[in-house]
Amino acid sequence: MSHNTFGHLFRVTTWGESHGPALGCVVDGCPSGIPLTEEDIQVWMEKRKPGQNKYTTQRREPDQVRILSGVFPNAEGVQVTTGTPISLMIENVDQRSKDYGDIKNKFRPGHADYAYYAKYGIRDYRGGGRQSARETAARVAAGAIARKVLESVLGEVTIRGALVQMGPHKVPKSRTKWDWGVINDNPFWCPHAETADKWADYLDGIRKAGSSCGAVIEVQASGIPAGLGAPIYGKVDAELAGALMSINAVKGVEIGDGMEAAKLTGEKNADQMRMKNGEPIFKSNHAGGVQGGISTGQDIVARFAVKPTSSILTPRDTVDLSGDETDIVTKGRHDPCVGIRAVPVGEAMMACVLADQLLRHRAQTGRHDGLPLGD
Amino acid sequence: MSHNTFGHLFRVTTWGESHGPALGCVVDGCPSGIPLTEEDIQVWMEKRKPGQNKYTTQRREPDQVRILSGVFPNAEGVQVTTGTPISLMIENVDQRSKDYGDIKNKFRPGHADYAYYAKYGIRDYRGGGRQSARETAARVAAGAIARKVLESVLGEVTIRGALVQMGPHKVPKSRTKWDWGVINDNPFWCPHAETADKWADYLDGIRKAGSSCGAVIEVQASGIPAGLGAPIYGKVDAELAGALMSINAVKGVEIGDGMEAAKLTGEKNADQMRMKNGEPIFKSNHAGGVQGGISTGQDIVARFAVKPTSSILTPRDTVDLSGDETDIVTKGRHDPCVGIRAVPVGEAMMACVLADQLLRHRAQTGRHDGLPLGD
Amino acid sequence: MSHNTFGHLFRVTTWGESHGPALGCVVDGCPSGIPLTEEDIQVWMEKRKPGQNKYTTQRREPDQVRILSGVFPNAEGVQVTTGTPISLMIENVDQRSKDYGDIKNKFRPGHADYAYYAKYGIRDYRGGGRQSARETAARVAAGAIARKVLESVLGEVTIRGALVQMGPHKVPKSRTKWDWGVINDNPFWCPHAETADKWADYLDGIRKAGSSCGAVIEVQASGIPAGLGAPIYGKVDAELAGALMSINAVKGVEIGDGMEAAKLTGEKNADQMRMKNGEPIFKSNHAGGVQGGISTGQDIVARFAVKPTSSILTPRDTVDLSGDETDIVTKGRHDPCVGIRAVPVGEAMMACVLADQLLRHRAQTGRHDGLPLGD
Amino acid sequence: MSHNTFGHLFRVTTWGESHGPALGCVVDGCPSGIPLTEEDIQVWMEKRKPGQNKYTTQRREPDQVRILSGVFPNAEGVQVTTGTPISLMIENVDQRSKDYGDIKNKFRPGHADYAYYAKYGIRDYRGGGRQSARETAARVAAGAIARKVLESVLGEVTIRGALVQMGPHKVPKSRTKWDWGVINDNPFWCPHAETADKWADYLDGIRKAGSSCGAVIEVQASGIPAGLGAPIYGKVDAELAGALMSINAVKGVEIGDGMEAAKLTGEKNADQMRMKNGEPIFKSNHAGGVQGGISTGQDIVARFAVKPTSSILTPRDTVDLSGDETDIVTKGRHDPCVGIRAVPVGEAMMACVLADQLLRHRAQTGRHDGLPLGD
Repeated sequence: MSHNTFGHLFRVTTWGESHGPALGCVVDGCPSGIPLTEEDIQVWMEKRKPGQNKYTTQRREPDQVRILSGVFPNAEGVQVTTGTPISLMIENVDQRSKDYGDIKNKFRPGHADYAYYAKYGIRDYRGGGRQSARETAARVAAGAIARKVLESVLGEVTIRGALVQMGPHKVPKSRTKWDWGVINDNPFWCPHAETADKWADYLDGIRKAGSSCGAVIEVQASGIPAGLGAPIYGKVDAELAGALMSINAVKGVEIGDGMEAAKLTGEKNADQMRMKNGEPIFKSNHAGGVQGGISTGQDIVARFAVKPTSSILTPRDTVDLSGDETDIVTKGRHDPCVGIRAVPVGEAMMACVLADQLLRHRAQTGRHDGLPLGD
Repeated sequence: MSHNTFGHLFRVTTWGESHGPALGCVVDGCPSGIPLTEEDIQVWMEKRKPGQNKYTTQRREPDQVRILSGVFPNAEGVQVTTGTPISLMIENVDQRSKDYGDIKNKFRPGHADYAYYAKYGIRDYRGGGRQSARETAARVAAGAIARKVLESVLGEVTIRGALVQMGPHKVPKSRTKWDWGVINDNPFWCPHAETADKWADYLDGIRKAGSSCGAVIEVQASGIPAGLGAPIYGKVDAELAGALMSINAVKGVEIGDGMEAAKLTGEKNADQMRMKNGEPIFKSNHAGGVQGGISTGQDIVARFAVKPTSSILTPRDTVDLSGDETDIVTKGRHDPCVGIRAVPVGEAMMACVLADQLLRHRAQTGRHDGLPLGD
Repeated sequence: MSHNTFGHLFRVTTWGESHGPALGCVVDGCPSGIPLTEEDIQVWMEKRKPGQNKYTTQRREPDQVRILSGVFPNAEGVQVTTGTPISLMIENVDQRSKDYGDIKNKFRPGHADYAYYAKYGIRDYRGGGRQSARETAARVAAGAIARKVLESVLGEVTIRGALVQMGPHKVPKSRTKWDWGVINDNPFWCPHAETADKWADYLDGIRKAGSSCGAVIEVQASGIPAGLGAPIYGKVDAELAGALMSINAVKGVEIGDGMEAAKLTGEKNADQMRMKNGEPIFKSNHAGGVQGGISTGQDIVARFAVKPTSSILTPRDTVDLSGDETDIVTKGRHDPCVGIRAVPVGEAMMACVLADQLLRHRAQTGRHDGLPLGD
Repeated sequence: MSHNTFGHLFRVTTWGESHGPALGCVVDGCPSGIPLTEEDIQVWMEKRKPGQNKYTTQRREPDQVRILSGVFPNAEGVQVTTGTPISLMIENVDQRSKDYGDIKNKFRPGHADYAYYAKYGIRDYRGGGRQSARETAARVAAGAIARKVLESVLGEVTIRGALVQMGPHKVPKSRTKWDWGVINDNPFWCPHAETADKWADYLDGIRKAGSSCGAVIEVQASGIPAGLGAPIYGKVDAELAGALMSINAVKGVEIGDGMEAAKLTGEKNADQMRMKNGEPIFKSNHAGGVQGGISTGQDIVARFAVKPTSSILTPRDTVDLSGDETDIVTKGRHDPCVGIRAVPVGEAMMACVLADQLLRHRAQTGRHDGLPLGD
């Protein structure tokens, strides 16, 4: 069962609300002997942390991770995982719950307020409670451990993400025009400097108008061998789709060519194969690195669309707990484009899916990679 | 663990290869006392069955379902489910395995041949073996039972699908121009008669050229109450995304506005609320009936993109088991647009996800619907 | 979720009723490349098969297993597993449903008739339907595959069982007096010839009186390396306990010293360790080969108690569907000591638990065995 | 997958080591709207807490539970569950890790030291790390919530446990001689005052000798309706067996008559039925309240045997990490009869199993109880 647990063998159970004392997760199934410190996790937390520039919520959270279990010094004195559950906790510091007092009985359109009420009959209205994107802090922490698992088994693995569309404005379609080196030089994780400048102007306008906009994020994994995937219902792409769609505000998920694949003919879509240095290679990657739910050894490429932040200053029609019609303005501190901070979250989910698939592949095959040809 | 099992409480385990003696599934977790005959299932099998017109594979399979367990006559003599596993079997009849002899050592580009080899070191090359879309026959059979579950608890529930794009040609964007009444009047499940005519010409050309094309399918569920969904990692939309992406050849999945949501502003995206007859209603459905992973009571709307059939007559570059370069032409009997027959499969997956979510909702709340306002 | 599925990575889903057309199982997660024929499975089915002597039910079932999926000839022409689900079917042949007509509305004491009614509101009363021990035929078939998995990874593994108590009569406590060589020379799987003779007389009396008796079975696994087990809630012994208790009519489960462990002092219970040929060995095996839920490399030893067959000729008080008091005599064809045929079932469950644990161990460690000392 | 998670719908994930900064659990799947405070949990923690008398370890842990998430005040201001994960944390206070320095490289016989090393290659040797029975504090906390779930749905439910055997000394077999009222009047949870006195003397001797002894615990649940259980592999008794066997040091588990059932004849074992006030009743409870894995409405009765504490003052032969032979004495602070403090743990596990089964029963049937007769 899922509820609040993600994964099968590499399992992440997250807990916590936006304005409770803390949030965190338990990472279970992590192999033993992997060096792991709080700093290893913190570096990824910084990427998602709020309040880093004018384009993200001004809530100031240090997002300091604490490891409560599952690590111990090995014979050389290096702190490593022990194979037991790793409990991570992040304390909430900058809660301003009074910001939410006037909306406690109203359902914010675009938010899950009504849906949570319909299901549970009660909700923690402070900052959305459990529905808050603040939950994704725990995902990023877990993702940091998932990266460690992948690297400890496979060597160098790169999982990286970029914002490729903000509102209606996209980066160039051709990835040859992208420069991953500029990703950290702009506040949007944009792989194209000119586009980043354009977005800055666009988002300034959105922000000043008290409005918000959507975005599309691309995440890629390099260094993943062929063979990962558990057909029929544990396919790599199916699990990626579920994982990315589970991120707050996501409404669409694509693998490889995605929705555009519908427009292709069979000739164009086929990723033809050749040999190079005794290894099979592909002449294209329309498939996004997954065929039949199993990795092919190419880069795994996925995209997801994030809807505009639902908290805006323009009044919207709504109803309240009593069933009366009213309207609502959502003040508080919000990201005008929540998609920006979804970049590290998408990376983390991809890392978790792949770490989990790697362990399952190892279980079923006794190997961590695909079989070579010609033997 | 998933492997070949789908669902948590309403669980479907499928088995079988394209050219083995039979295929089927075990449906476990179905509540007892629901009337169920082979005919109830067969009616949905007919919709997916191959060989029904010139646009689908000419393989002739009766796809006759047999119920091997899990039903028994009740006191009134009506055959009903007993709450024990329902085993369904469909015998393969029209296998022409010799069609596949010349490709047994080659990897068909666009297919999962190489990926299966890399993982398992062996594959049933006849018709793709387990990777074949023939596996979806078992999904449709399970979906028929899922519909029964939904109806037995909720009353009238409608789950229906339509092809909304073939290659580059789309039906009108405005759903007011769609006519679900014409769905069965054309061989494409197209909700727009003129578009269906256009597709007929287009697909004739594709077929005669030995080529293939992709498609987009929309599936909708009406009659689903608010409250279904198991946040954070068992969200309705996340599970739908995983379910639809697990269908053969699917590369993109959307809920509500999908990838287009990225282009909206917060004002446009908000589904504002009003009251009507004492019930909350929404003024739009950008969300596709799901907020925070929980159903809102609106129609649940999803779309998925199917890539073009990979089996085409144009030679493609590939490699073989020995690691030698070669090329390949895929003869045999294939659908020029495999997306057409994916329509009932998409419906079935949506039915399975919702039946499973309904049972989980009932477990956690003791109710089958959402809480009313104003109490 | 369990329902009718057993295991996590090596997963067995059984289906079928005592008097339906067939029963069977789907074995999912079996590694690829393992030679497997119907004969490999049939040899174990013969051991459990009814009607083999006067001490078991006279129902005559050939229990012929058919493999419907998941195998294919490899390059050498040997039929091997492909890594896809293995569907097994056993047709029911000797059904005499009319035997059950007069008990269809009565609850047989000791049977699960009332419990099934209370839960499901309907039951297949023919031979107990799903509650029948006939379901265990599918377990034995799955166990045959589990053995293959263990052997393919670990080399020689022996899983064997014996009846060690029938009614009040036990085999000698000291295992040095047992002779596994005589197991097949008596109809009870008794490891002690004199005891077997005594049991023959005892059971003749029971049978002629239309009565029944209970039994205790011991199952052992040799060749299992140290390290298998997934603490805290997937311990080898906990899963064995659950697996054995899930067998029909089982009321007690023991590992190692079992219930007797309560009587020991710490000094006596400690399995002291020494080195031998560079390997750690134990001076005793009170633990039954499991410490902290993880295998130690010693033989894994478990026992389970089977209650007397509930179908007897002596009238018992009961009630019926209408809530009226009545009495009942259970005619039909029944085992006077159902524990005898539980021996191969216990072995099968142990094999399934260990195969599953082995795959999980391999997932988490990348090894199939325990770490050596002194490195 | 299990690892460190227990349950399907009512799910408990525990984490933490004996001497780490804290331990705890995440309880997921708890229905919303159930009043819950830290005091509600603390009352059960007190029962398991160490250092309460001379018969338990002198480690002094306040075992103060803190609720970190999953509760919120409802409209009446009462703190209730919200349906989101409940994170519980218990800080470790009285750690004396230096006690363990001299055994860090030695394997303690009877403990899981060697098994953990063989699997993980590293262990937190302080107090057994994760293998420590200190983990059960988190189980007791979770069990307190499970009781709340049962009561909120079923009304009065009593789950209680008693020590029924210490070393070789048993309470009277006839339960009519037991007095649950004296359970709290002796330090052993013994339901028979004279026996408790005898045990006091016996255990004094054991303790002074630096030795230890085993025990048997009985747990009972009253108020559980007929119908709970998920055959075939999620039976109530199978899950109870797995749950109880997962408790540290448990070697045997019994339901109803348990191992003694083997000695009965079919006539004696049958729990005959009569009607009383329109309800079916049973004339005996050999089955322990479970038939075919489904509850019958009678009291559910289980027992489990706990081996003697492995930490004793008598030197035992062992080996060390280098593969050298040595001996060991386990000083530190230990329970001479760890079975005593297992009583509340057994109750907690039974509560968790039943709460989980109740939710699954509700999912499949839409009811929380069994069907009445005569309708």
